[in-house]
Amino acid sequence: MTESRTASAKNGAKKEAAKEKGAERGITVKKAENFTEWYSQVVDKAKLADYGPIHGTIAFTPNSYGIWENIRMPFDRMIKETGHKNAYFPLMIPESFLKKEAEHLKAFAPEVFWVTQEGSRKLADRYAIRPTSETIVYYFFAKWLHGWRDLPILVNQWCSVLRAEIKDTKPFIRTSEFLWQEGHTAHETSEEAAKEVLLILDFYKTIAEDYLAVPVVLGKKSNLEKFGGAEYTTTIEAMMPDGKALQMGTSHNLGQNFAKGFGLKFLGKDEKEQFAWTTSWGISTRMLGALIMVHGDDAGLVMPPKVAYKQIVIVPIFKKDEGNMVVDFSKKLAGKLQEFRVEIDLREGVTPGYKFNDWEMKGVPLRIEIGPRDIKEGTVVLVRRDTKEKKTVKSDDVVKEVQAMLDSIQQHLFDEASKRLKESITDAATYDELKQVVSSKGGFVRASWCGKDECENKIKQETTATNRVIPFDQGRSGKCIVCGADTETIAYFAKAY
Amino acid sequence: MTESRTASAKNGAKKEAAKEKGAERGITVKKAENFTEWYSQVVDKAKLADYGPIHGTIAFTPNSYGIWENIRMPFDRMIKETGHKNAYFPLMIPESFLKKEAEHLKAFAPEVFWVTQEGSRKLADRYAIRPTSETIVYYFFAKWLHGWRDLPILVNQWCSVLRAEIKDTKPFIRTSEFLWQEGHTAHETSEEAAKEVLLILDFYKTIAEDYLAVPVVLGKKSNLEKFGGAEYTTTIEAMMPDGKALQMGTSHNLGQNFAKGFGLKFLGKDEKEQFAWTTSWGISTRMLGALIMVHGDDAGLVMPPKVAYKQIVIVPIFKKDEGNMVVDFSKKLAGKLQEFRVEIDLREGVTPGYKFNDWEMKGVPLRIEIGPRDIKEGTVVLVRRDTKEKKTVKSDDVVKEVQAMLDSIQQHLFDEASKRLKESITDAATYDELKQVVSSKGGFVRASWCGKDECENKIKQETTATNRVIPFDQGRSGKCIVCGADTETIAYFAKAY
Repeated sequence: MTESRTASAKNGAKKEAAKEKGAERGITVKKAENFTEWYSQVVDKAKLADYGPIHGTIAFTPNSYGIWENIRMPFDRMIKETGHKNAYFPLMIPESFLKKEAEHLKAFAPEVFWVTQEGSRKLADRYAIRPTSETIVYYFFAKWLHGWRDLPILVNQWCSVLRAEIKDTKPFIRTSEFLWQEGHTAHETSEEAAKEVLLILDFYKTIAEDYLAVPVVLGKKSNLEKFGGAEYTTTIEAMMPDGKALQMGTSHNLGQNFAKGFGLKFLGKDEKEQFAWTTSWGISTRMLGALIMVHGDDAGLVMPPKVAYKQIVIVPIFKKDEGNMVVDFSKKLAGKLQEFRVEIDLREGVTPGYKFNDWEMKGVPLRIEIGPRDIKEGTVVLVRRDTKEKKTVKSDDVVKEVQAMLDSIQQHLFDEASKRLKESITDAATYDELKQVVSSKGGFVRASWCGKDECENKIKQETTATNRVIPFDQGRSGKCIVCGADTETIAYFAKAY
Repeated sequence: MTESRTASAKNGAKKEAAKEKGAERGITVKKAENFTEWYSQVVDKAKLADYGPIHGTIAFTPNSYGIWENIRMPFDRMIKETGHKNAYFPLMIPESFLKKEAEHLKAFAPEVFWVTQEGSRKLADRYAIRPTSETIVYYFFAKWLHGWRDLPILVNQWCSVLRAEIKDTKPFIRTSEFLWQEGHTAHETSEEAAKEVLLILDFYKTIAEDYLAVPVVLGKKSNLEKFGGAEYTTTIEAMMPDGKALQMGTSHNLGQNFAKGFGLKFLGKDEKEQFAWTTSWGISTRMLGALIMVHGDDAGLVMPPKVAYKQIVIVPIFKKDEGNMVVDFSKKLAGKLQEFRVEIDLREGVTPGYKFNDWEMKGVPLRIEIGPRDIKEGTVVLVRRDTKEKKTVKSDDVVKEVQAMLDSIQQHLFDEASKRLKESITDAATYDELKQVVSSKGGFVRASWCGKDECENKIKQETTATNRVIPFDQGRSGKCIVCGADTETIAYFAKAY
């Protein structure tokens, strides 16, 4: 579907012909010069998303959904191997449920889509479309939980959630509906809940760094930035090329807050009735936004091989009379490469150069070029998307060479992004320094902070930078850059998506 | 979570203790005597679903969701191998979209949940929560489709849909929200669309018969029973033990009906602009309802091995001092059986007999019993859930024996169900015969029918039996049992869920 659109000039429509030949086929701005427009063009031209009729909604095309599936699979495996199971909870939540946890209601009420009619009947009570599912999940947990032997309860659901975004929507980064997984667990003790929160955060780090090749900073959210209703929130935070931070996933320790609201009680080993300790955690299709922003270049998308919906494209190159031989050889080669996600581009009526550009735009990590001379010499040409380097290899070695090159691309993308993350972090010893960095270079500003809402709020109001993360990696005494109080805490401040 | 509930008597709560020992642990009615209550108890006691706070909504527990995952996986593989790709389309659909296809609106408007508010703002236009996604999908297809080279478009999405059910809800069979896949395709020609419809129907048959072990009748729906907006609907139809039919999946040829409503046009090979030919098709968690009804027995659920969320449970049997040896042996055995979905039941404080009943209730196809004497003799005892037959096998042969027994269970369930399906079909030569069968035995009544809405409606109004399917397998001339007109068509009539 999406692959073949560009070939439609052959249909003879003048508009289409103009599109194919015209400059608008490629990205028309530089990533470094107009990042916002660059992002929007990559999403459009690599056919990752398309705007819906309702403000802030998008369709996830097969291309972006394919990447999402490659994120889902390893994460799903990780949680299942650690005893979690998938389930599914109702989309609609009675309004009264949201009101049971005051902070939670405050956080989500302004963004809720409300169902008020069913067929032609007006409903007596409004139903919220889930902005997140803690409240409805605890309704069920309370029915399922009796004694300590029922714990832990470890469930997860893959679904979409809806949060009305009034302005500044951006595909994958901020939309009114997005796809995610939300995990919900209940435990016997506070310690077990705390352990679960970190187990999952570690999985999130693995997904971000080992799969998406996006390095992250791990830590806690401040009191002001934590999830509505949580004891504390842990986060993986990434840095985008425009100097703005992106929250990539969060894992919350909810203490007994929700358990109290929903009567999530059990009879403990001590024969006493007590409230359970709960956690919740999520990653979303926002991850796709990070992937695009961090790895893309002026030619378009660059997909890390592990999550690429297509890893290899084979482009046969031939004059008319040599076609059969080259196509046959390409098909045999594709057969050899079946352990990878591979496709042969057999489109007619477009040049190899057109195909190269098209697959570069779409970010396929590895291109294999095959011509009659290659076949004669028993070689194929590998071209990597990230560095655009070419390598001629023996066709007998192609499986090994392809695997090595894909590994190298995955590693290279991560190394480059890690370098940039490091460079994006600036230490600020004074509030003036922080302000100066925020308003010029951007990125993370690392600074001592006393931990008070008041000082954090002052920074937010005066600079629009927020406290992104209090890294687990601490160990530096200092004075709060706002109030000057002695503190052991450092935090990363940045403007954020 | 669900597995350990029954063990909670150990907590000392009197209510729980009573529950464990009490009769209500098992199914308290016979399947043959009170089918409705039996179904409800199996769903509850095998922990497959739990009622939500909003009428007609349920939570899919890990047990039922686990079965759903085992249906999803093979179907997902089948459609991907035939060129389909997954995508995701917005949940909310503008009201105006539903109005573009008149029959479609008529069919779904009474069941739509309407979103009318976003945060504290009243919306100018109402949004429907998708009851099905044809309209929103075609909005996007129209943007993606330019010329014939863009065809076919073959996409699928896994999601939930919402249809308000006012009365008679039943978990899996009829609820206000359910999980499904909906495929949507666009083609160059009418013939290709017709071919797609049958390709998918054949996949549905495979899922129903080879995975769920539920035999089905394949055919077309009548004009009155077809999908709102379709040229024609094909269906797989199953028979439940209470004599009522269950539609298990449908595949629709939408002709150019929706294409015209949504401007789904392309420039053809003939250089002329034309409308695309589209199809849509879906199977849902209703399949779980069929599985429960068709295979369950007085002891509870019976899961076909291929879709069972757990295929084997190992129950160690020992006196206190022999515990370690038996548990160690059981763990080694579970290790050997890793290619299956296997679990060891190590719960303390409940007897082996309790465990046997518990796993029978939950429908796990195969139980392995291991005691000290078995270990000494190098044997294990296999007990199959369907026939409850026991077989002592050498523990060295366990992998082979287990595989053979699981295959045999899968086949036996299908064979038994096929026999019952055959027995449920009654030929009626006259309208009186049809009425008599419908009001007594039930099941499918096979009868000649002229094809007119009028005759079909008469049957429906007078007997409540509907035209379930016009089987592909025809070949019998006769006279319409209502009007007496000569006809080549036979149809299956039945009361239905």
